[in-house]
Amino acid sequence: MLSVAVVGASGYAGAELCRIFSAHNEVCLKHLYVSENSLDKNKKISDLYGSLRGRCDLVLEPMSDPKSLIGEVDAVFLATDHKVSHDVAPVLTASGIAVFDLSGAFRISDLNVFAEAYGFEHEYPELLASAVYALPEFVDLKALRATKMISLPGCYPTASQLALRPLIDSGLLDLNYRPSINAVSGVSGAGRKAKLTNSFCEVSLNAYGVFTHRHQPEIAEHLGTEVIFTPHLGDFKRGIHATINAKLKDNVTAEQVKKAFAVYDNKPLVRVKEGMPKLMDVQYLPYCDIGYAMKDGYIVVCSCIDNLLKGASAQAVQVFNLYYGFDELKGLFG
Amino acid sequence: MLSVAVVGASGYAGAELCRIFSAHNEVCLKHLYVSENSLDKNKKISDLYGSLRGRCDLVLEPMSDPKSLIGEVDAVFLATDHKVSHDVAPVLTASGIAVFDLSGAFRISDLNVFAEAYGFEHEYPELLASAVYALPEFVDLKALRATKMISLPGCYPTASQLALRPLIDSGLLDLNYRPSINAVSGVSGAGRKAKLTNSFCEVSLNAYGVFTHRHQPEIAEHLGTEVIFTPHLGDFKRGIHATINAKLKDNVTAEQVKKAFAVYDNKPLVRVKEGMPKLMDVQYLPYCDIGYAMKDGYIVVCSCIDNLLKGASAQAVQVFNLYYGFDELKGLFG
Amino acid sequence: MLSVAVVGASGYAGAELCRIFSAHNEVCLKHLYVSENSLDKNKKISDLYGSLRGRCDLVLEPMSDPKSLIGEVDAVFLATDHKVSHDVAPVLTASGIAVFDLSGAFRISDLNVFAEAYGFEHEYPELLASAVYALPEFVDLKALRATKMISLPGCYPTASQLALRPLIDSGLLDLNYRPSINAVSGVSGAGRKAKLTNSFCEVSLNAYGVFTHRHQPEIAEHLGTEVIFTPHLGDFKRGIHATINAKLKDNVTAEQVKKAFAVYDNKPLVRVKEGMPKLMDVQYLPYCDIGYAMKDGYIVVCSCIDNLLKGASAQAVQVFNLYYGFDELKGLFG
Amino acid sequence: MLSVAVVGASGYAGAELCRIFSAHNEVCLKHLYVSENSLDKNKKISDLYGSLRGRCDLVLEPMSDPKSLIGEVDAVFLATDHKVSHDVAPVLTASGIAVFDLSGAFRISDLNVFAEAYGFEHEYPELLASAVYALPEFVDLKALRATKMISLPGCYPTASQLALRPLIDSGLLDLNYRPSINAVSGVSGAGRKAKLTNSFCEVSLNAYGVFTHRHQPEIAEHLGTEVIFTPHLGDFKRGIHATINAKLKDNVTAEQVKKAFAVYDNKPLVRVKEGMPKLMDVQYLPYCDIGYAMKDGYIVVCSCIDNLLKGASAQAVQVFNLYYGFDELKGLFG
Repeated sequence: MLSVAVVGASGYAGAELCRIFSAHNEVCLKHLYVSENSLDKNKKISDLYGSLRGRCDLVLEPMSDPKSLIGEVDAVFLATDHKVSHDVAPVLTASGIAVFDLSGAFRISDLNVFAEAYGFEHEYPELLASAVYALPEFVDLKALRATKMISLPGCYPTASQLALRPLIDSGLLDLNYRPSINAVSGVSGAGRKAKLTNSFCEVSLNAYGVFTHRHQPEIAEHLGTEVIFTPHLGDFKRGIHATINAKLKDNVTAEQVKKAFAVYDNKPLVRVKEGMPKLMDVQYLPYCDIGYAMKDGYIVVCSCIDNLLKGASAQAVQVFNLYYGFDELKGLFG
Repeated sequence: MLSVAVVGASGYAGAELCRIFSAHNEVCLKHLYVSENSLDKNKKISDLYGSLRGRCDLVLEPMSDPKSLIGEVDAVFLATDHKVSHDVAPVLTASGIAVFDLSGAFRISDLNVFAEAYGFEHEYPELLASAVYALPEFVDLKALRATKMISLPGCYPTASQLALRPLIDSGLLDLNYRPSINAVSGVSGAGRKAKLTNSFCEVSLNAYGVFTHRHQPEIAEHLGTEVIFTPHLGDFKRGIHATINAKLKDNVTAEQVKKAFAVYDNKPLVRVKEGMPKLMDVQYLPYCDIGYAMKDGYIVVCSCIDNLLKGASAQAVQVFNLYYGFDELKGLFG
Repeated sequence: MLSVAVVGASGYAGAELCRIFSAHNEVCLKHLYVSENSLDKNKKISDLYGSLRGRCDLVLEPMSDPKSLIGEVDAVFLATDHKVSHDVAPVLTASGIAVFDLSGAFRISDLNVFAEAYGFEHEYPELLASAVYALPEFVDLKALRATKMISLPGCYPTASQLALRPLIDSGLLDLNYRPSINAVSGVSGAGRKAKLTNSFCEVSLNAYGVFTHRHQPEIAEHLGTEVIFTPHLGDFKRGIHATINAKLKDNVTAEQVKKAFAVYDNKPLVRVKEGMPKLMDVQYLPYCDIGYAMKDGYIVVCSCIDNLLKGASAQAVQVFNLYYGFDELKGLFG
Repeated sequence: MLSVAVVGASGYAGAELCRIFSAHNEVCLKHLYVSENSLDKNKKISDLYGSLRGRCDLVLEPMSDPKSLIGEVDAVFLATDHKVSHDVAPVLTASGIAVFDLSGAFRISDLNVFAEAYGFEHEYPELLASAVYALPEFVDLKALRATKMISLPGCYPTASQLALRPLIDSGLLDLNYRPSINAVSGVSGAGRKAKLTNSFCEVSLNAYGVFTHRHQPEIAEHLGTEVIFTPHLGDFKRGIHATINAKLKDNVTAEQVKKAFAVYDNKPLVRVKEGMPKLMDVQYLPYCDIGYAMKDGYIVVCSCIDNLLKGASAQAVQVFNLYYGFDELKGLFG
């Protein structure tokens, strides 16, 4: 039985972690933290999320000093703002706590790229260098288990990489044609905040952050190639649908493409299907569904995830399960 | 050609007034005002509402002193907070400007009821006494045209009264059975504000303000009978659907009920239909649709309006048209 | 380990049963049946419901003769049309199979009322008399376990009875004031069918079946009192939100009402809350959430369920668990 | 005053034509036709579309023989299936009636491409050759007014061409990089039909018709270049949002791109904006909104239309207005 804390528990990803751990029989969820000046502190998580009532009724504690966690827990999930993760993670890892970071603080290895994308200088380059970027279907298990600093991929990067990596790893793409990723996210991706742009009456399908979104360099680094990445806000609560246009090398066959995607044959959370995937098939579920079509040397790949699950919390627990050697799916369908 | 200003133009009802007046050939919309500390001031209304671009591109001016409107305009529409209307209206009416108030500041005649519902004491009881509550299908035109202080009904009260008044005025209801009004409103009814409760991911069908909503005393006063009023927030942007349960007096016939609703036969914006009305038939339109069914001495009446149109701005202009003797529908379908 | 079959598996309730049983470790789901002329036969359930891929990939078999189930399974869930349940159930119960019927075929005990509501004469009055109507929070466990014919409540009747029974059973209501139930259902309540009225562009909040819906007599019989029941179609996929207006007897106190609802204190799937419930808190979950407010001798009670779960499949498995003595919640959160 | 008939009036585009003509003071809408075996025949259009009640209450007549229209009307709008338009248009044009065809029957000039896209051989190549493809912002007015056979662009092709033509016409694109068009359409694009795929509970963001949609060759022909076109179904009723990825020629400047889009400066229905467009700004309106961003030699262009208006009926009437020399916007905001 492992003791676990969630920092930033009042956000949407935090709440999903609470739900998952309520069904995970190897974990004792000991503490939920919010920032010390949060209005939510001292409330129960189930006061914020009525759906959790009876399943997780822990109180949201204000966190002043991460050191208070030392000796208390084996692992900490950071569902926090990038800067908070950046500041807190070193304290925790230094004392032997495994950190599962859902923020972007440890996803980009180039310090200049990081600074431009996140708006502040990274102060812990050594910890950053030791961090393992854990897309679970591709992560090196040995390296994963050798670190305390686990960086989870972003939501868009998860959908993008799961769709593109089989093709790139198999050398099937003509990368002179820069792949384009057009992805639509549900509003929960913007977090649980009172903002006019998230207000019900203001939400309507539109592109945003074109050429400027911080997930672009993350995708580019981990795919090893430049991409045009265009995120959109859609008028639904949960999920990401990504449509990717790419060019195949000359004479690539359907058989070769099929074989490339067979990399997922023994991966329980990636479902490659005939035809194109549908967002609702993965909403509230930890899967990534993938479909594709090809013609005239071009390929269109579509992938769907629940941004809060395969794109955040379920993936974090999937990695946690792999890290500690539990069944990869434990808790994920609870 | 009348000169008109809108105060509180940046809200949803204000924007609809701009749209309507852009199609109203007897009106010159001269000024749009927002509060002096609004972040929207000095922006164009079409910067806030892209749909208006090319149709209304007026700048939102900060309003410091309502006296600046004297001599400038013939009529002012107040799409403001109740307290602002309460403070501004006396200045305007005193100088002969016709005030069309979309707030609740002049809807309730009993000062105690008002104070309890709105949380402040009414300071202008004489102006309040001279105000005409202008539900256009029932308003006394002579009285309307004799005042400068026109108070427009609230959104829920419009849907409720249009459904119930024909039955009550015809004496068909057994009011010992207190009628219940269950109404669902789109989120725009909560205004254009950054609030967590209006956030896309937080909205989901629920009742609110049960037994405490300030539209209850408004409905009760103008119907002349107590009602149980339960408002709900629905997950759509615009519209109100009201379902009303009431008891008929003994031996009331279908023919009598039909005759009661015939009061709308020459009212162009109320459509009584066979079967039950559907919200989408009135969204973005200035109509109120009504249907009903009766059995065992009980009657269920449903009414639908667009809360921003028949429930606010279109009705305000309908009343404005009646006030000045224009075609009742002028501008409403622009 | 019990062997189970689902008849009518291709519908929305059937698919939810498949999902639940995929997480129920005391059940072997052996057969899924559809009608012999269904276009879905010989497809996998996961071809129809992509969300089930990897969790339930059973083939939909055409069912010609219910006798083929004898000796094959211990229990059968009928997620079928009323007439099919009516015809099939006697064959199954006669051979000792426990039948959990989600249709309306065995919910109403009065044969005349049944015929009027369902449009055909009931041919098995003896079986009907032996059927147990199993609202799990109120069912007599001894009687339940003594029958083979278990009739599950309808979706609207579940939401309605859970909200009203504590008040009626405690004698707190003045039933001379006929309670009104105004309920809004998601579109899945209309079934998985190609109908213009269910078409995405045609759905918009509206009342239907006013005074004529077959759930009215079901509610009235099992509450033991007449009600005005008005169902509505809402523009969401899943869930029912019911708002109920009723009159309290003179001098009933808040304390008495609270005590009445304390009947649910040890019922894990009914959550009575302060304030009003929100539909999203129960969507995709097996709960019923209840809230209420009272004033001037009247009470408004709101209840929320997922129509496919507490209103259908999860409740059916909850009853199944009680019937066989399993943990009441087994499988329900899978 | 021109006399006009609509064939296929019961569909969504047909209903929008009725609405527009009810506000068009140069048109007398004389007949609405549906196919002779339609269940809707002899109903009023406002029985199908409650929103039209009081504005257009014409009866839907069954059409057996298009010749019956000769001498009756000046112009006919075909909001029909491709094959019906193909069969009916020659009869009408032969007798001097101007035909505004909203179907795809006369959009593709290559007979082989047509046959592959539409599944039947075109039997009227001469009429096809004389047809004018009327994207109003680019159409040659003289040519338009010289024909009787006006072919209106499809919904996706309208959004696509309005976004791409300024760049292509100005020679700014490196077309060795095949542009990709990723477009999401509301469900009304699929027509008013009882189909399971359009059923409310089945709709969820997904790509369809990848590499096979018949709008691909239409776009390619009229842009004069190949494109990758991926349509998606979105869970909203109305509108198309298109996101286009393309490569600029070396050293193309922001100034040049801006100048290219200045082609719309005097086009009242195309609004080029800073930042990216939002679908809701064009829903229920006849506009096309366009925004773009560029970096590293690539450009992303987004365009939004209401698929039933700028993508169908409003554009058809815009062309009709140009054809007859009326104000281009007449009726479009009614």
